[in-house]
Amino acid sequence: MSSVPKRQKLDAAGDGNTSAGPNEEESDALEQIDACQNEIDALNEKASEEILKVEQKYNKLRKPCYEKRSELVKRIPNFWVTSFINHPQVSGILDEEEEECLHALNKLEVEEFEDIKSGYRINFHFDENPYFENKILTKEFHLNSAASENGDWPASTSTPIEWKEGKNLLKQLLTKPYTNKKKRNSDYKTFFDWFSDNADPVNDEIAELIKDDLWPNPLQYYLVPDIEVEPEDDDEIDDNEEEAFDDDDGEEEGDEDLEDEDVK
Amino acid sequence: MSSVPKRQKLDAAGDGNTSAGPNEEESDALEQIDACQNEIDALNEKASEEILKVEQKYNKLRKPCYEKRSELVKRIPNFWVTSFINHPQVSGILDEEEEECLHALNKLEVEEFEDIKSGYRINFHFDENPYFENKILTKEFHLNSAASENGDWPASTSTPIEWKEGKNLLKQLLTKPYTNKKKRNSDYKTFFDWFSDNADPVNDEIAELIKDDLWPNPLQYYLVPDIEVEPEDDDEIDDNEEEAFDDDDGEEEGDEDLEDEDVK
Repeated sequence: MSSVPKRQKLDAAGDGNTSAGPNEEESDALEQIDACQNEIDALNEKASEEILKVEQKYNKLRKPCYEKRSELVKRIPNFWVTSFINHPQVSGILDEEEEECLHALNKLEVEEFEDIKSGYRINFHFDENPYFENKILTKEFHLNSAASENGDWPASTSTPIEWKEGKNLLKQLLTKPYTNKKKRNSDYKTFFDWFSDNADPVNDEIAELIKDDLWPNPLQYYLVPDIEVEPEDDDEIDDNEEEAFDDDDGEEEGDEDLEDEDVK
Repeated sequence: MSSVPKRQKLDAAGDGNTSAGPNEEESDALEQIDACQNEIDALNEKASEEILKVEQKYNKLRKPCYEKRSELVKRIPNFWVTSFINHPQVSGILDEEEEECLHALNKLEVEEFEDIKSGYRINFHFDENPYFENKILTKEFHLNSAASENGDWPASTSTPIEWKEGKNLLKQLLTKPYTNKKKRNSDYKTFFDWFSDNADPVNDEIAELIKDDLWPNPLQYYLVPDIEVEPEDDDEIDDNEEEAFDDDDGEEEGDEDLEDEDVK
C-alpha cells in the first residue's frame, strides 16, 4: 500500500465529501492509520520470522532422533520396502521388480531446507544391488523463491540413475506387457517413474506422502495391527487402494492416520 | 500408537519371518524405534506449544496498534460502513437500510481467544441509533475443543438484538418485497441475517472475511485507488460482486489483496 491515502470510492455518509475529498482532520487521521498499518505489517513479519526460528530449532532437535532411528532401522531387513508396501497409496506405485530392487534401500532421509518453506529433499540410500550403481538417489524440491537465486522454481530434480546393463527398470516397464496384478490409480505407474518425473513439482502426491506421512512415523506402516491382516485377500487390498486414490485427497487421509503424531 | 510393536502384515523379504514373527534382534530394534517415535512426538508437541506462544506474544504486541487505530478511526465518519461497502464480498450482504443503520458503527474489534485455535469474537460497537438499544453486538465463534469445557463446539453465538419499536430490520426484510438493486449471491441475504444466523459456524465466509481481511487492513477498502472509481457505474459494480461470489472462493480472493500484509 502506498503511504499516501488515496481518494475514497464511495462516501457512505452522502454528505458531499466525495467530490471535495476528505477534509484535513480526516486526512491526518488516515495518515496516522496508515502508519499504524505499517507497524502491524512489521509485527506480522517479525512473527513469521520467529515462528520460522522455532520450526528450525525443532528441526535441529528432531534430527538426532531421526538419525538414531535410521541406525536402528538398518538392523531390520526390508524395513522401508515393507513400510512402502503397507502404505495404502505408496504401495500403488510399486512394480513387482521394483519391490525386489527396493530390498536394497537401507536408509531413507527427508531433509527440509534451512528456511523450511523453500523446499526439501528425499535421499534414498541403497546397498550394492543388481539394478544400478548409485549409492544414493536424491529427489529435491525447490518450491519457493528463497530456494534458488536464479529463480528456477518451483522445480524438482532427481539423481540420474546409473542402471546396470539390462537392468533399466524404466525401459523394461515400457516394453513389457502390463502384467502387474495391482491396480494403479496414481498419476505414476511405478516408483522409478515417479522418481524420475519432474514435470509437476508442486503437486507431487507421492513425495508429500513420503515427507509428511511415512517419514514422520513409518512404524505405523511397518507394523500393521492384527485386525487388518486376517480378513483381507489380494482383491480387497486392491479395492482399498482404489478408494484411497479416488478420494483425490490422499494426503489428508494420511494425516488422519497420524493425528496427534504429526503436529509439526 | 501402542508401545508394543505389533505383527507385520507383509514381510517383503519373503524369508519366512511372517509366520514366525520378527526375531529377537528385530524386536529389540523395533522397541527402540518406537521409543524414538515417542521422542519425536514429544518434540512435535513442544514445537506446537512454542509456536502458539509466539502467536500469543504477537497478538499482544499488535493489540496497542489496533487500539490506536480504533481511536483514529473514530475521527473518520463512516469509516467502517464505507470499508464494508467497498469490500467486494461483504458489500453483497448490505441491505440499503442496513447501510443506514451501520453509519452508527463506530468501532469494530476482532479478538482471538487466548489459545487462538479455539475461536474468536467480533465486537461491533454502535453509537446511539434509531434501530436498536444495544451498544455492542458480539458474534463469537467457538471452533475447537479448548474453547469450552462442556463440549459445545463448533458453535457460534450472537448478541440478541434489542430492536426499537417498528425498527426490526430482520422482520422488515422478511415482509417487504425484494426491492434492493444489488444482486445477492452470498448464503446470507443481509448483514443482520448473517449476524443472527448461527447454523453453520465452521463455514462462515463473512465472519472470516471480517477477521482475516477487513480487520488486518481495512484501509485498503476504505481507500480505493482512483483507477477503479471512474469507469464503473452501478451495473458494473453489481457484476463484480457476482463474479466474486460465483468463484465460490471469496476468502482467497480477499487474501490476494492482502498479500504480504497478512502474514499472521
